[in-house]
Amino acid sequence: MTTPTLDVLAIGNAIVDIIGHCDDGFLTTHDCPKGHMRLVDQATISALYNDMGPSIEISGGSAANTAVGVAAFGGKAGFIGKIADDEFGRIFAHDIKSAGVSFAGKPQAGNVAPTSRSLILVTPDGERTMNTLLGISTELSDTELVPDMIASAKVLYLEGYLFDRPEAKAAFRKAMGIAKEAGREVALSLSDAFCVDRHRVEFKTLIAEGVDIIFANESEITSLYETKDFDRAAALAANDMKLAVLTRGSHGSVVLHAGKSISVPIDPVVKVVDTTGAGDLYAAGFLFGYTQGLGLAEAGRLASIAAAEIISHTGARPATSLKGLAATKGH
Amino acid sequence: MTTPTLDVLAIGNAIVDIIGHCDDGFLTTHDCPKGHMRLVDQATISALYNDMGPSIEISGGSAANTAVGVAAFGGKAGFIGKIADDEFGRIFAHDIKSAGVSFAGKPQAGNVAPTSRSLILVTPDGERTMNTLLGISTELSDTELVPDMIASAKVLYLEGYLFDRPEAKAAFRKAMGIAKEAGREVALSLSDAFCVDRHRVEFKTLIAEGVDIIFANESEITSLYETKDFDRAAALAANDMKLAVLTRGSHGSVVLHAGKSISVPIDPVVKVVDTTGAGDLYAAGFLFGYTQGLGLAEAGRLASIAAAEIISHTGARPATSLKGLAATKGH
Repeated sequence: MTTPTLDVLAIGNAIVDIIGHCDDGFLTTHDCPKGHMRLVDQATISALYNDMGPSIEISGGSAANTAVGVAAFGGKAGFIGKIADDEFGRIFAHDIKSAGVSFAGKPQAGNVAPTSRSLILVTPDGERTMNTLLGISTELSDTELVPDMIASAKVLYLEGYLFDRPEAKAAFRKAMGIAKEAGREVALSLSDAFCVDRHRVEFKTLIAEGVDIIFANESEITSLYETKDFDRAAALAANDMKLAVLTRGSHGSVVLHAGKSISVPIDPVVKVVDTTGAGDLYAAGFLFGYTQGLGLAEAGRLASIAAAEIISHTGARPATSLKGLAATKGH
Repeated sequence: MTTPTLDVLAIGNAIVDIIGHCDDGFLTTHDCPKGHMRLVDQATISALYNDMGPSIEISGGSAANTAVGVAAFGGKAGFIGKIADDEFGRIFAHDIKSAGVSFAGKPQAGNVAPTSRSLILVTPDGERTMNTLLGISTELSDTELVPDMIASAKVLYLEGYLFDRPEAKAAFRKAMGIAKEAGREVALSLSDAFCVDRHRVEFKTLIAEGVDIIFANESEITSLYETKDFDRAAALAANDMKLAVLTRGSHGSVVLHAGKSISVPIDPVVKVVDTTGAGDLYAAGFLFGYTQGLGLAEAGRLASIAAAEIISHTGARPATSLKGLAATKGH
């Protein structure tokens, strides 16, 4: 087992977020399930864009946000995802590289799907509802993997959102095999309760095949184990994996390991502006602390600090150095 | 003279802003004149983009920001500017239309320059420094004017930044002729001291030909009249035009009309985040109040409120309803 050169290597959708504001009625009228992500085609995203108000564009993508968050703490992060040779692809590549993340993606030219984008509608309560174009990033297959990068990272982090197409599922399995072969750990984010609902059996198979760490919120973990009882779902997750890291929104989070349960409080926020990226940045803070060898409670604290920073402004990329922010809070 | 259906018709560059942060050293290294706008070619903008940190994309353009600001106060605004049939063109058109501004621009397809963009570097003091690609918007000519729109607006607002190419200068003259013919007023924003320096004589000719209202900051108006004495420049401007609206940054602004000078205080801001659009939104507030028939002092107050809103967040488009914001402040 060689010495790892990356802390976290993330694999996920390469997305540029288009963020605007709306009221709850707009979501209802446009069949957008509040608080969730739905995959849409070009016609649907165009119609929605036409109807929504002014927006701003910020690089996003769940696992990509996590990789940027790890780098913003001073950690070494890499990202594998697929972009097209277009304006949004250039924006995505620029933003992730300039944030200090190793990004191996080569823009795909020719008659290909466009770089993925997500129309994110933020309601007055700060909740985000996402409509993601089935662009080129959902076509990731095992040929896009970079085995050396995967083998070089302490933790391989897989984004559940990507787990919709057979090619991506095969890519996840291959990446997991490379990581295991190199003696690394594998983390999985469940991403979305609907996504879990669509692929429950296969997620469970993937977990059984070697996921060490799971990141999920309350609705995702209860969907996975088909129970309404969070404590029961948490216990089942803890039994299935080395580490279960479960977030509960404003109620904080809980980390389960070796028969123990650690409660992690939230880091208070004056005003929740936009929850986009809350889970992604929580994972970033936790994985940074974990890969630096900090205790689980301390990793959880960094996770809460990162999540609080991201929900206090628009967009899912940190607006400040998380290393500096954590330092001001005594970490 | 028919009844006007628009309050303000603005003509200017159609730009998407790419906003990132840097320190003063970065500006020096990359020859960016702090606080100013410089026009750059594709190679320069690409090199700068490559070197700068993560950024976000928000629709901008000086006069376009002003039109959006007028609409955000509840006024009726229109905009004429030139976009290409590309991703940034679609973003610009979506954002200005969904903000409630009438936009007549048709995307130009084929082998044309791309939609204009400006790399905006914000330093820790909140000051913005702009590097604008000579894209398609700088190619505006009199064939792109929409005479009916111009004739229907109480005030025609011309963006000085656009005044660099002969075609644009001709377009300004033609637009001014249409407005005058319809009995409307013409406002000119001087935009940038370097821009004034390049075209001083022609700006003065344009003013003499019929500009009624001038918007300028201290460095622009003193550059126009080639004096270091602000009061002297202000007096000369007041003599040349019906209305001179002059901003002085954190020292507030002054409105000169009919031999009188009205001082307008700033609206205090807790923290200056990004000064991009401060002058544009000041003009929006003033023109909204002016076209509603409010007094000059009250128009100035609305101008200060709009400028304060825009510098308290990133980007030059209002993040809230300016009508609602003004109401909370008793206007």
